[in-house]
Amino acid sequence: MNEPASPADPAALTPGEARALFRAGLRAPTAGYSAGYTQANLLALPRDLAFDFLLFAQRNPRSCPVLDVTDPGAVDASIFAGDLRTDLPEYRVYRDGAQVDAPADVSDVWRPDLVAFLIGCSFTFEAPLLRAGVPVRHIEQGRNVPMYTTNRPCRPAGRFSGPLVVSMRPVPADQVADAVRVTARYPSVHGAPVHVGDPAALGIGDLAEPDFGDPVDVRPGEVPLFWACGVTPQAAVMASAPPFAIAHAPGHMAVTDVADTRYQAP
Amino acid sequence: MNEPASPADPAALTPGEARALFRAGLRAPTAGYSAGYTQANLLALPRDLAFDFLLFAQRNPRSCPVLDVTDPGAVDASIFAGDLRTDLPEYRVYRDGAQVDAPADVSDVWRPDLVAFLIGCSFTFEAPLLRAGVPVRHIEQGRNVPMYTTNRPCRPAGRFSGPLVVSMRPVPADQVADAVRVTARYPSVHGAPVHVGDPAALGIGDLAEPDFGDPVDVRPGEVPLFWACGVTPQAAVMASAPPFAIAHAPGHMAVTDVADTRYQAP
Repeated sequence: MNEPASPADPAALTPGEARALFRAGLRAPTAGYSAGYTQANLLALPRDLAFDFLLFAQRNPRSCPVLDVTDPGAVDASIFAGDLRTDLPEYRVYRDGAQVDAPADVSDVWRPDLVAFLIGCSFTFEAPLLRAGVPVRHIEQGRNVPMYTTNRPCRPAGRFSGPLVVSMRPVPADQVADAVRVTARYPSVHGAPVHVGDPAALGIGDLAEPDFGDPVDVRPGEVPLFWACGVTPQAAVMASAPPFAIAHAPGHMAVTDVADTRYQAP
Repeated sequence: MNEPASPADPAALTPGEARALFRAGLRAPTAGYSAGYTQANLLALPRDLAFDFLLFAQRNPRSCPVLDVTDPGAVDASIFAGDLRTDLPEYRVYRDGAQVDAPADVSDVWRPDLVAFLIGCSFTFEAPLLRAGVPVRHIEQGRNVPMYTTNRPCRPAGRFSGPLVVSMRPVPADQVADAVRVTARYPSVHGAPVHVGDPAALGIGDLAEPDFGDPVDVRPGEVPLFWACGVTPQAAVMASAPPFAIAHAPGHMAVTDVADTRYQAP
């Protein structure tokens, strides 16, 4: 299958159009796609692990805000009128906590006992950030957002434990307050930053070497802002080694049918 | 055991003092107790039903906002430094969906496989309502809050389904906006009203005959405001008939150690 070309204006695509491109084989980070629509992290786990994971998410709401959960075996969700096995640009397949594949389609490994969790993604608040005049560097640079594993443990639950993962966006010092204010209004998609400034305080050695995604330029006068990231569930899979799991590739999200305004706090 | 006298100033009790009174046998609705502290609904279910219920709560966040979940067998919780079996004023014990007991202590029927869910309660935002000058009639009248089963179904999940239950507070017409504004800031404890005005639209026939709690006076010029209520999980137990469940008696809540400000939206 030939990979389709990247669209000229990804922000203008409807969620259905974006999903059709990904279903056809396009592999691309979804930041900037379908502006105004909520994006979501995916984690699918066997039913017998579903309570432990849902509890892990409940105990770590900043990093794991649950937007939707499928019934076992379902491949669509109330917020996602597509096929979870094909309509994300890229996946990660884990066995015993180790990544064993990175396909563009997981139809052949999907199982009827899987429960899929859709978890809020900070890409959702990037359109509001841009509307507020706050630059979003990885969109400017056409890259995936940089993500880092931190030294902060999540609250464990049953079989799941692991570190907090964060995404980073550099923001000019005089716009940090705007970035906090805007993102705080979206608690279901990670909300306000968990940390502002020194990466070392989170155990991050070098911003130029993210654990997931791509590095972006941090310019003089800019402050790195760190938001809890929906890759945290994948870090929990790596740390906790459930027998089987399917996740999205970091930055390659489920584009949902729900307007970002639904997740705006009053 | 003689029941202790009601305290002269329940609002001034610390959560630990309130729990000690209830542990000693006081049976009283907790509205107005320990002002500034979060109160919570209790539902304890066998571990094998815990995922279905947690998913039911996730799908019905207005009525079932989960504040904390215990590990199986635990009798305290991160937000509740007491004993869940003894420190609420009154309980309901259900078998196959039917209430079989209404004791002040459930130590003798508690089981090691129980997972306890603590769910936000609208009593939490009553102190902020009072600070904003909005009257809270059931506190004024020294009664339990009136609660009604509605004709609105919850979104089902696994074995659980059932109707939305609401609490009602009458508010003077010129303070309805204040009541909405204040309570909307507390989404984890039911947030803004789900309905303002005509009870018939919710299938409520007579405000003077609540399904749970006590009736309160609705005065000329007042509008009934309806908030999603944490008795909804108990209605789901009645409708879904799990083999075993323990809940609080409606209005007789778990008084937690957490300030209500923790659940205030930014």
